[in-house]
Amino acid sequence: MPTLTRQHCLSLDQEDSLAPLRQQFSLPQGVIYLDGNSLGAMPKAALSRAQQVIQAEWGNDLIKSWNTAGWFELPSRLGNLLAPLIGADEGEVVVTDSTSINLFKALAAALQMQAANPATAARKVIITERSNFPTDIYMAEGLTRWLDRGYRLHLVDSAEELDSAINSDTALVMLTHVNYRSGALHDMAAITAHAHRQGALILWDLAHSAGAVPVELNRAKADFAVGCTYKYLNGGPGSQAFIWVPKHHQAAFHHPLSGWWGHAAPFAMQPSFEATPGIRRALCGTQPMVSLAMVESGLQVFAQTTMQAIRAKSLALTDLFIALVESRCASHPLQLATPRMHAQRGSHVSFIHPHAYAVIQALIGRGIIGDYREPGIMRFGFTPLYTQFVDVWDAVEGLRDILDQQDYQPDAARNAVT
Amino acid sequence: MPTLTRQHCLSLDQEDSLAPLRQQFSLPQGVIYLDGNSLGAMPKAALSRAQQVIQAEWGNDLIKSWNTAGWFELPSRLGNLLAPLIGADEGEVVVTDSTSINLFKALAAALQMQAANPATAARKVIITERSNFPTDIYMAEGLTRWLDRGYRLHLVDSAEELDSAINSDTALVMLTHVNYRSGALHDMAAITAHAHRQGALILWDLAHSAGAVPVELNRAKADFAVGCTYKYLNGGPGSQAFIWVPKHHQAAFHHPLSGWWGHAAPFAMQPSFEATPGIRRALCGTQPMVSLAMVESGLQVFAQTTMQAIRAKSLALTDLFIALVESRCASHPLQLATPRMHAQRGSHVSFIHPHAYAVIQALIGRGIIGDYREPGIMRFGFTPLYTQFVDVWDAVEGLRDILDQQDYQPDAARNAVT
Repeated sequence: MPTLTRQHCLSLDQEDSLAPLRQQFSLPQGVIYLDGNSLGAMPKAALSRAQQVIQAEWGNDLIKSWNTAGWFELPSRLGNLLAPLIGADEGEVVVTDSTSINLFKALAAALQMQAANPATAARKVIITERSNFPTDIYMAEGLTRWLDRGYRLHLVDSAEELDSAINSDTALVMLTHVNYRSGALHDMAAITAHAHRQGALILWDLAHSAGAVPVELNRAKADFAVGCTYKYLNGGPGSQAFIWVPKHHQAAFHHPLSGWWGHAAPFAMQPSFEATPGIRRALCGTQPMVSLAMVESGLQVFAQTTMQAIRAKSLALTDLFIALVESRCASHPLQLATPRMHAQRGSHVSFIHPHAYAVIQALIGRGIIGDYREPGIMRFGFTPLYTQFVDVWDAVEGLRDILDQQDYQPDAARNAVT
Repeated sequence: MPTLTRQHCLSLDQEDSLAPLRQQFSLPQGVIYLDGNSLGAMPKAALSRAQQVIQAEWGNDLIKSWNTAGWFELPSRLGNLLAPLIGADEGEVVVTDSTSINLFKALAAALQMQAANPATAARKVIITERSNFPTDIYMAEGLTRWLDRGYRLHLVDSAEELDSAINSDTALVMLTHVNYRSGALHDMAAITAHAHRQGALILWDLAHSAGAVPVELNRAKADFAVGCTYKYLNGGPGSQAFIWVPKHHQAAFHHPLSGWWGHAAPFAMQPSFEATPGIRRALCGTQPMVSLAMVESGLQVFAQTTMQAIRAKSLALTDLFIALVESRCASHPLQLATPRMHAQRGSHVSFIHPHAYAVIQALIGRGIIGDYREPGIMRFGFTPLYTQFVDVWDAVEGLRDILDQQDYQPDAARNAVT
């Protein structure tokens, strides 16, 4: 590794083939934004897209925009644009509802598939990690409690336990590909293959991997996936989530949120539900269109590069961050919570510190935006589309100075929002 | 009634105290928009509100807007702004998710309340109308099929059947206050009282009444309600729906869509769900914020008037429309599908015609926007905030001319979208 200097970081930016894409984002002056894993930055095109939807499509064309502006088709059109980023095929993804709601649909459909098969009907265990993002666990709790058919959640305490935990009692494995706290990345293909060997289905939450790391859902033979568009995909605050159902599972994909947008003939106004063929059966009700339309502006940036280029820069950024923190802040009690191995690392890096919350607040006060996660984690996200190598240098220098000067309030009240 | 002339309609507009509010909407030139019951028109303020959210709150302030811009609180803040329009109290309404999803939550919670009470646990029937908007029926089908505990839907064929249909087997009555096809308005207080006398709970869908007719949920002692913000409330295309749970039901309100936004401590990242006290337990996951924020621009117009003033003008508009169609198109086979009695009429008027679809297409071709609903219904919505009396005159003249000249294509292909 060459000597780590700010000048070296600037030279890395000059050589970076992704650097020009940063110009497509609106980023505030004087801010180093390392929280794109929580809320992605704003593509400049999103503003004009929203203006178009509001003024022309809504204000002027009114009701006819459901057809002429393609509003009704938008969940599947966006799904097709997103599909290549996650190794999915056309007609397998829709952008709709929230991640929580989509988890519920996939969980319900998976359990029903297992229940409908005599060979798997007795399987009653859903396996996930205790460290999974809480809403994943909550939605599984909600579904299984209401079904009241003996399903139970088994929360494993570490990824190493998965191998033995997945067995002939397992109906479904539900995992988040990249852990929201540690940034640890699962081996999707290996765990999927293991689950299948044990007769279980598998549901992947891609909230912290879509747009951040290469994902190959079909190649891994995964069964279901959901994910978020407002983090690495830069779709806008709270923008709709996505759900993926591979072609071979679609005919058997049934869920209780059977709203009219998933009906075979939504405008025939029939008094009984009949699921439409294909991925649109994962839809439920009408979507907020201005927010949904802006998702496209985020996806358009990805269309100008490849997930391989993004991954290479992501690893370079996180390698650099880890190396700089560990060298330049070596005298402070910082403990890396993110795997060092590339194959096990997503696109954010977490450090444990006794005053993690206070230090993050001090960083934010200096315009270096990371975030805090309970308990005791400082989290820094690296978004190759707009994060510069020099940002990494400057962020670490800010961190070093705050720690050296003890320029933070150890008793700061906590008020963290994802 | 004075002689009905265009001049008379213009004089009604001059005397109309609501007329100035029309200036707050962006309406296309040369269009008479009678479809605000499907998609409300655009408040001019919505564009600047969206620009503020996109540029300042997202683009510049990024992640901190969850706190500083009040994003996280927005579902309940908007709910409190909406509450007076439907006779609800503060802390009883949230704006979130779609109507279909909110129906599911309320249906599930209602059935569980009945099941938890030994006096009502044996009740297994959900009563609704076959003519209810289909997604209401579909969501009830979805829930009851998945619960698989003997619940069944009883679809009544006319409102008159409700009295006898609601009995000691009834767990829940689910009705839409104003019918989406006919515009018929239920007597909420009377039906609610009858349901309660029979030991049933009642869930009202206010999709076609919120912002269109006075609604008094608490005065009627209703149990649950859901509704739409993108119709009469002018919240924007597909904008989030709302759900109302009165204070006395909130502690017992449990539903399976138990996502992290409904958790007592959403950022404590606990691995088990615990519902938050109050109405926010009806939330599930992250909301698309740009669309959600624009809902406020629609509600701000309502804050400048009263539902009584809106109702008076609504009835005057629909009375005028019915009188003009029946007098000036008397030679044509038009049949009123909407009740004549004020107490039974919402804010749209429907006529049956043998070539209803083709006639609606011809009207749209002339810039007179109503819509078609299967089977055979021409539907015209009247939105007192921006519909003028002279619009009613001109719309009927357009209709009369189309019918007199047979200026429509009887075999036009159907492609209706709500």
